[in-house]
Amino acid sequence: MTVTEIRDPVHGYIKLDDLAFDLMNTPQMQRLRWIKQLGLANLVYPGANHTRFEHSLGVYHLANSLANHLGLDEDETLKVGAAGLLHDIGHGPLSHATETVLEPYLRREHERIVDLLRKGELRDILDTFGLRPQEIQAFIDGDKLGQIVNSEIDVDRMDYLIRDAHYTGVAYGVIDHLRLMQKMKLHSGLLVVDSGGVQAATSLLISRLLMQPSVYFHHVCRISECMIVSGIRKMIEDGANAQEIKSMSDMEFFSAMINCGGYAKEIIQRILSRRLFKRAVYVGLENLDPSFFRSDERWLAQEISDLAKVDPDYVLLDNPAFPYTLEGDFPTVVGEEVKPLREVSPLVTMLEKAHRATWRFGVYCREEDIEKVSQAAMRCLDLKKNAVQHTFANID
Amino acid sequence: MTVTEIRDPVHGYIKLDDLAFDLMNTPQMQRLRWIKQLGLANLVYPGANHTRFEHSLGVYHLANSLANHLGLDEDETLKVGAAGLLHDIGHGPLSHATETVLEPYLRREHERIVDLLRKGELRDILDTFGLRPQEIQAFIDGDKLGQIVNSEIDVDRMDYLIRDAHYTGVAYGVIDHLRLMQKMKLHSGLLVVDSGGVQAATSLLISRLLMQPSVYFHHVCRISECMIVSGIRKMIEDGANAQEIKSMSDMEFFSAMINCGGYAKEIIQRILSRRLFKRAVYVGLENLDPSFFRSDERWLAQEISDLAKVDPDYVLLDNPAFPYTLEGDFPTVVGEEVKPLREVSPLVTMLEKAHRATWRFGVYCREEDIEKVSQAAMRCLDLKKNAVQHTFANID
Amino acid sequence: MTVTEIRDPVHGYIKLDDLAFDLMNTPQMQRLRWIKQLGLANLVYPGANHTRFEHSLGVYHLANSLANHLGLDEDETLKVGAAGLLHDIGHGPLSHATETVLEPYLRREHERIVDLLRKGELRDILDTFGLRPQEIQAFIDGDKLGQIVNSEIDVDRMDYLIRDAHYTGVAYGVIDHLRLMQKMKLHSGLLVVDSGGVQAATSLLISRLLMQPSVYFHHVCRISECMIVSGIRKMIEDGANAQEIKSMSDMEFFSAMINCGGYAKEIIQRILSRRLFKRAVYVGLENLDPSFFRSDERWLAQEISDLAKVDPDYVLLDNPAFPYTLEGDFPTVVGEEVKPLREVSPLVTMLEKAHRATWRFGVYCREEDIEKVSQAAMRCLDLKKNAVQHTFANID
Amino acid sequence: MTVTEIRDPVHGYIKLDDLAFDLMNTPQMQRLRWIKQLGLANLVYPGANHTRFEHSLGVYHLANSLANHLGLDEDETLKVGAAGLLHDIGHGPLSHATETVLEPYLRREHERIVDLLRKGELRDILDTFGLRPQEIQAFIDGDKLGQIVNSEIDVDRMDYLIRDAHYTGVAYGVIDHLRLMQKMKLHSGLLVVDSGGVQAATSLLISRLLMQPSVYFHHVCRISECMIVSGIRKMIEDGANAQEIKSMSDMEFFSAMINCGGYAKEIIQRILSRRLFKRAVYVGLENLDPSFFRSDERWLAQEISDLAKVDPDYVLLDNPAFPYTLEGDFPTVVGEEVKPLREVSPLVTMLEKAHRATWRFGVYCREEDIEKVSQAAMRCLDLKKNAVQHTFANID
Repeated sequence: MTVTEIRDPVHGYIKLDDLAFDLMNTPQMQRLRWIKQLGLANLVYPGANHTRFEHSLGVYHLANSLANHLGLDEDETLKVGAAGLLHDIGHGPLSHATETVLEPYLRREHERIVDLLRKGELRDILDTFGLRPQEIQAFIDGDKLGQIVNSEIDVDRMDYLIRDAHYTGVAYGVIDHLRLMQKMKLHSGLLVVDSGGVQAATSLLISRLLMQPSVYFHHVCRISECMIVSGIRKMIEDGANAQEIKSMSDMEFFSAMINCGGYAKEIIQRILSRRLFKRAVYVGLENLDPSFFRSDERWLAQEISDLAKVDPDYVLLDNPAFPYTLEGDFPTVVGEEVKPLREVSPLVTMLEKAHRATWRFGVYCREEDIEKVSQAAMRCLDLKKNAVQHTFANID
Repeated sequence: MTVTEIRDPVHGYIKLDDLAFDLMNTPQMQRLRWIKQLGLANLVYPGANHTRFEHSLGVYHLANSLANHLGLDEDETLKVGAAGLLHDIGHGPLSHATETVLEPYLRREHERIVDLLRKGELRDILDTFGLRPQEIQAFIDGDKLGQIVNSEIDVDRMDYLIRDAHYTGVAYGVIDHLRLMQKMKLHSGLLVVDSGGVQAATSLLISRLLMQPSVYFHHVCRISECMIVSGIRKMIEDGANAQEIKSMSDMEFFSAMINCGGYAKEIIQRILSRRLFKRAVYVGLENLDPSFFRSDERWLAQEISDLAKVDPDYVLLDNPAFPYTLEGDFPTVVGEEVKPLREVSPLVTMLEKAHRATWRFGVYCREEDIEKVSQAAMRCLDLKKNAVQHTFANID
Repeated sequence: MTVTEIRDPVHGYIKLDDLAFDLMNTPQMQRLRWIKQLGLANLVYPGANHTRFEHSLGVYHLANSLANHLGLDEDETLKVGAAGLLHDIGHGPLSHATETVLEPYLRREHERIVDLLRKGELRDILDTFGLRPQEIQAFIDGDKLGQIVNSEIDVDRMDYLIRDAHYTGVAYGVIDHLRLMQKMKLHSGLLVVDSGGVQAATSLLISRLLMQPSVYFHHVCRISECMIVSGIRKMIEDGANAQEIKSMSDMEFFSAMINCGGYAKEIIQRILSRRLFKRAVYVGLENLDPSFFRSDERWLAQEISDLAKVDPDYVLLDNPAFPYTLEGDFPTVVGEEVKPLREVSPLVTMLEKAHRATWRFGVYCREEDIEKVSQAAMRCLDLKKNAVQHTFANID
Repeated sequence: MTVTEIRDPVHGYIKLDDLAFDLMNTPQMQRLRWIKQLGLANLVYPGANHTRFEHSLGVYHLANSLANHLGLDEDETLKVGAAGLLHDIGHGPLSHATETVLEPYLRREHERIVDLLRKGELRDILDTFGLRPQEIQAFIDGDKLGQIVNSEIDVDRMDYLIRDAHYTGVAYGVIDHLRLMQKMKLHSGLLVVDSGGVQAATSLLISRLLMQPSVYFHHVCRISECMIVSGIRKMIEDGANAQEIKSMSDMEFFSAMINCGGYAKEIIQRILSRRLFKRAVYVGLENLDPSFFRSDERWLAQEISDLAKVDPDYVLLDNPAFPYTLEGDFPTVVGEEVKPLREVSPLVTMLEKAHRATWRFGVYCREEDIEKVSQAAMRCLDLKKNAVQHTFANID
């Protein structure tokens, strides 16, 4: 007796076609059951324990719905659905937290999803259904109809915004995805949003903008992520294999950190018992001297720890990339013309700008070192006392 | 056996204190059971049948919660709650739809809420609880602690945004009112929002902005409102009393329109069976010549109907006031300083500007006249054909 | 530009096919916008202002979904959808409140839905789509595939239970209709529920059982309904036409009561300002002597009012029919066998019995007469003082 | 900057008093972040990843609300809240899954919560607030006001029913806990439910009854639990310490199984990749010969595996305890009398009986052995072929 319907608290029932059912049962997909969607956000939002597995099912479900709405044929629908289901199988443990740090240590041509699709069960299943791995990879990359699962306004974002809202309890993630999907159509083979859907599309951007500081960039998430990054570096210095780490589940990763002992073990134990580093400095763009962005990060960390007389392992710098451009380029149909969303909805340009205001630079350390590190960092960064306090207050 | 708890689909249970219970049972409050919160929005959103009565209970509930959170004393809490409960008893039938048109016909010093509070049962009840009508009126006007129920960020707006979302099914109204209220405090007697609540406060503004075109200014709502306004003018020309109309419930008003006969009856019958006027012209600011705003509206209507050779009763002009400034002035506490929200959240300024983009000027007529009226109106307004069509497409 | 999708707070978007769109625009359907689904339940649950119109759209939506799930062909789907949409067009004002009292006054062969379908716009539309009124009537009567919209477990019940829960805020109405529909299938042309859906089907019965005393039979609803019934009797004695009353909207009915003057006017004014009659007696089966059920109701009312020396117009008897048998007969497929649900789920039999325990007999009167009427009624009914008080306490 | 409000998707914001804040930060409470509330139910319901940590916060929150509603003094409220927060710190990994199997291996007087409260940080915190561990233990045991957190109708059940519904997406868990709590009161020091809350109390029992087979006793949960039990037995035979296992988090437990190697490792790998055992037999009470219950379980397992010629490690017997009596004893106040809920609500007795019908006996094995084991088990149990198939069909 095969179970082909899965209960999902976000979308109700998710009905799986035969391909999806077989794919779901592969070890690659089952592994996602044990990888949290929001990494360590459960340290802030205790309900945020949802996984890449259910998110992948959700993306599959929305991809299917949108494919039906657009009137795709059976073969295209199958491929779009598979791309939606499989798009996250390449993720490392803790989702994004481990991604950047592992990158430089991976083989130059590190394994892409298509490589996973060319092996074992996954290859056999795709074969049975007459699909080629490269086709799925192309869709995951957003090629042609792949826009459904990977574009500026795609079902991946719709699912995670709604899902993250359901599990964190934060209201901002509520977007009108039903309307948005109903107002999408194909225009000379291009996925576009109809003028009637501009409002709903804008709501998705707003939702992203509001979730950013509240959830995705919450300082507790960033601190614990920096701690993880620092622990992984030590593990790898101690001989751990980056490719192996990337294929672990969350719990395998935690075990590996513990088994590594020393600093890595201390870090993971701090995280598991929530004895986190604290913010010594946390400032926005407006408080940083432009020269700061030309300075070498490692040198800066060294300088702060020297000045503070604190072991450099316990002074973490957090200098995130600027929030990427929003979805303002998404094609919108007005009458007969196709224009970027940005031109149709003036609010979108404004939102794109507002995103930069959520950026913060941080220096984190143990609670007992906070006075020393804070003073040292402020001197090194040439910050006024005022600036820091102002910014502290700015954050929930 | 007194019922002192009322089930509300939005807030769960609403617990009434003795004062609120007595006030709720007056004819002035009971009348609000029969006045729809969103006027004729049920013609677009079939679920939007909620009433001023439940909204008033909701505002009372939130006012009470906020008063408790702020640590007000019993007497202040009582007054704030009463102000929240009573703030809408002066509303005419169909909420906003009838308000503007009646204004010029009312006695110069038309009845304010305080006058209603000085008569009959309401006066007696306030007396029993040692309250003076003027105190309640002052709070309803937003004086001092009255900011809770009437200010740029007040519980009135919180309730209607959430409630309108629940009944229309439109997702945009979801705001994080729990967080917002928890981040409010008194600062030298002034209601302010804490820096930790800036995000939640901004979400309220966004919610208002998105609800505006989708619900409050949906073209079907505006058309039916213009029809009502036109019908009321005829009724009053035929001798109806504006003050009497203002004190009617929705159904008394509909009956009065029918009993009036002629044009008023035709209008209301059209509304009840949803045979509405259509848009002959519907354009944004960018399409209108500045001289348009200096022209006399009545003269313009006459000119269009003459040119189109259509009875002027069946050519309705809709030239709404510009959307009022948003809540950017609301005081926000950052560290020790109080600043307007606008300065703390750059997004707010942008939202204020974006609001203007939702404004539309409209000319409405019977379906059979649409060709003629559209052409005439475009000539009178010196509009390019393109402009109108562009704007049509822009609207859901 | 036709609007073919309607936002519904319960089901999200409801997509209308061309037939449904045309039917929706007829006066017969538009009239349902102005008839409350739960009659006067808004006097208890202020949010319960939802209408037959949105319920009809909801039933149409679920009927369509179920038809698709069952794999019906286009023609059958069209008919099932139309039956769902039109099933309530014969309802009088205030839904059930006016139904029973009008019955005896209507022409022997009073107008059925099929008669409405044979006239005017409705006939023309059905004609255009090649449908015969009799076919729709047969489906509304639950014939063959009509079971979808009218059977012991039909989409009508699913919609109203969920909808009534949404608007009253009472949690009991939450049933797992998604699962229930997914577990339904056709078995030799008969609509059955699969063994995997027994749980979900049972939840529907439970939901009905719990909603009964909390909402449908709440004493405030029953009192106001009895008042309406009493008012209508007077109106008809005064010459009003029962058939005309039946075709009114809620507000037309309220106006008619007011215009009638005298007792009818007093009754409706009491209802509009919520000055309701109170319970003088309210007892369950266990407290009533079996001979009671053989006694003549009119004679009993007369006897009580005589004994209490109270005008008989102000002593209302409420002796409702026993709650009808539950859905225990619904066919369920277990392996290859079809059995009644009752045999598969032992809980169902229990629920059927439990339903009788919610029955109450009531005597209602003005607040000022309650002492006199209560004593008189208890004597006439041979009730022990204990019995009544016990039962009072039993009710929320 | 202390965070004293925690966002919870079920209850909104949970506000922590100082005691609760300090307790929450102990390792004993933080450990619950890493223990899933529903063990392996995420293998059926992918969203069911919620933890004992958030459940404990939820129980604390409801305990506090109920304490306030009952008018308890500050000291009592503090203790009730602490009992609610701490009631689960003694749980082993995977919540219930590991509980029964570890029991016989633990020291006769195995560690109770009170022992944990007498050590380290927890002792110090309680000291600071002038509380004695024994007081908290007494409340957790349901003594006096402890009924709030541990009785037949307690806030523990309320929270887990609602929470499990939110995360599984199963609708049955929706109970009217707001009403239920509002209708509870103290009657001579005893926690009772008012007659107005009988309906809401009954809904809690119904919810439990419906969640039982759908979630708590879903066959996939039971199979994986039996696999875990079997793995633990091997681990302990191999020298693992039961007390240590009991204090692990989920991931520590999974790691321990893997590190143990052999059978335990195979079992946990099967679970992590969801290659579960299947049902060879799954029957209700009505199909079992009474003599079955007198037979020795180990002997039966041996007999089946011998007959089937399958390694006994791969034949698992599942003979759960009968579902415990429901909440029918809970005291209910009707007028002046206190009666058990069962007497006031006839439905309750019925529900208690219906619970037995959900009981199943199971024999589970590897997919490849299912034919052999099924036949052997049916012979040993003297089952008719019909019986098994019937029962299979009975289960979702």
